[in-house]
Amino acid sequence: MINTETSHMQTSAIHLKGIKISQNTTERSNNELGEITEPISTPVSVSEQQEWYGAPRPLSTSMLRDFRNKVRSGTFTGPTNGVCPGYLQCNMVVLRNGQDAFDFMLFCQRNKKACPLIEVCDVGSACPLGIAPGADLRTDIPKYRIYRDGILEEEVTDVTDIWPEDSVAFLIGCSFSFDEALTKGGIPLRSVEQNKCVPMYKTNLKCRSSGSLGGNVVVSMRPVKALDVSKMVEITSKFPHAHGSPICIGCPDAIGIQDVNKPDYGDAVEIKSDEVPVFHACGVTPQNIITESKVSFAITHSPGHMFIADLPSDTVF
Amino acid sequence: MINTETSHMQTSAIHLKGIKISQNTTERSNNELGEITEPISTPVSVSEQQEWYGAPRPLSTSMLRDFRNKVRSGTFTGPTNGVCPGYLQCNMVVLRNGQDAFDFMLFCQRNKKACPLIEVCDVGSACPLGIAPGADLRTDIPKYRIYRDGILEEEVTDVTDIWPEDSVAFLIGCSFSFDEALTKGGIPLRSVEQNKCVPMYKTNLKCRSSGSLGGNVVVSMRPVKALDVSKMVEITSKFPHAHGSPICIGCPDAIGIQDVNKPDYGDAVEIKSDEVPVFHACGVTPQNIITESKVSFAITHSPGHMFIADLPSDTVF
Repeated sequence: MINTETSHMQTSAIHLKGIKISQNTTERSNNELGEITEPISTPVSVSEQQEWYGAPRPLSTSMLRDFRNKVRSGTFTGPTNGVCPGYLQCNMVVLRNGQDAFDFMLFCQRNKKACPLIEVCDVGSACPLGIAPGADLRTDIPKYRIYRDGILEEEVTDVTDIWPEDSVAFLIGCSFSFDEALTKGGIPLRSVEQNKCVPMYKTNLKCRSSGSLGGNVVVSMRPVKALDVSKMVEITSKFPHAHGSPICIGCPDAIGIQDVNKPDYGDAVEIKSDEVPVFHACGVTPQNIITESKVSFAITHSPGHMFIADLPSDTVF
Repeated sequence: MINTETSHMQTSAIHLKGIKISQNTTERSNNELGEITEPISTPVSVSEQQEWYGAPRPLSTSMLRDFRNKVRSGTFTGPTNGVCPGYLQCNMVVLRNGQDAFDFMLFCQRNKKACPLIEVCDVGSACPLGIAPGADLRTDIPKYRIYRDGILEEEVTDVTDIWPEDSVAFLIGCSFSFDEALTKGGIPLRSVEQNKCVPMYKTNLKCRSSGSLGGNVVVSMRPVKALDVSKMVEITSKFPHAHGSPICIGCPDAIGIQDVNKPDYGDAVEIKSDEVPVFHACGVTPQNIITESKVSFAITHSPGHMFIADLPSDTVF
């Protein structure tokens, strides 16, 4: 069988970021000027996009194109909460094909609340054809983390050079996807108000293990007015692909968080006296698993620095 | 890491069916009498069942125990529509660990409507710990199909002897799971009324391919009164783990079905003049894929002959 998805990816463009400029040759001189250029990618035809039953219809707005170009060029390297409101945000994990990739896909299946799997690229491909046909996962995330033997080795803004030939790229839903729905529902986001990254914590909640992979759930926290907590549950429950409803409301102790002012990832945010901390399962969980299970090689996004897809955040999968 | 799920399975009992009696030795003489005996399985402790966040709480009623014992003993070998109403029914696919299993898990991820993945057993295990801790998938399905190189070779009622050591067993939601909700909602089932298996058809709807796996969606059909079709959509949409809402209502032509009275699997049922044929994506799709993609080895359930789990059919996963 000819795999049109893989063949599409192989012809997609190499995109450059600011930080990579010095490594590139004269034939890419326009990019070396640091200008934001449109990617030189093979366009995906409508028939390719829609070749399977239920294929989503990606939307590409100028807001999204501008944002992605800024990320590709290295101009935008910050956290993405509040960015491109209404669009689907995703966590990323890249592993090598084989038992690691199998165990991880099963891990997602077994821990849907923490790891709602939205898209898996074909082996070797960096193009998430189902949710963003024009994107390149090697360049289109503001910041990446590289893990070897479970140890965080490096944080970079481009992974083109180290993307494995036998990669399997997983994209997992992110709670940032429902932030716009919350804002519209009258529940503002403290982290966005304060220009911070959302705080994230390791918990004592054990995931269901899969092969060699095991560890605990990581959660994100949003302070919510006590009178709005029900509304928040109702709104977020409509986003099962973005962790859905909270897994803990109030009582950080109940999930093993000793000091809510000292998050393990992201920034601490204020909790006012009429507010309750609301905890959602978080797509940083895999990074905890990669560390605890000493996975030999992995690329992930940096916590809070997401991939933004060409689909509305409330897409029904 | 010690994998408690695998170790549980390895100590589980060998269950016998009527058809296997002649092969067994004197130490199992009680079973040789053909009596329905309780399985000699290592009980799963509460702590094992609940060791991970979000673990379901299996219910085991006497109805379910009686049914499973009848299946194990070979007394019940028929289709399961209408059986154990209110309990979760599942399609099964067993492949060998490696690329086939990886491609199939990704196939399910990419074709959620046809293949809503409910449970994947550990490598080598026949125990679906998350949804039926006391069950054994080698004996607890009324009828199995064995495929080699994509060709249906045999239909049997026990697969203990050919279960691969490196098996990966997949359980996929089944539309039988919402039949009780439909009946309660005043939408009776023609196939149950007429003591038939639900009719199933190959369609011209292409699945999203995964590695070497590709092919078309299979659908099940229920005739529904024109005045009840909306209600049927509303009820079934609450069962996303059991194929959810229909994928086609009326117009068999629109999905390539030329003669609705000649199903590819199951039995034809009458469609009355005030009724519309309603088509749901069906968990027999993988059998179509196994055939079209010439998969080297697979065990599946026989169409309409499901595994029944220890969970209510409306479980939220």
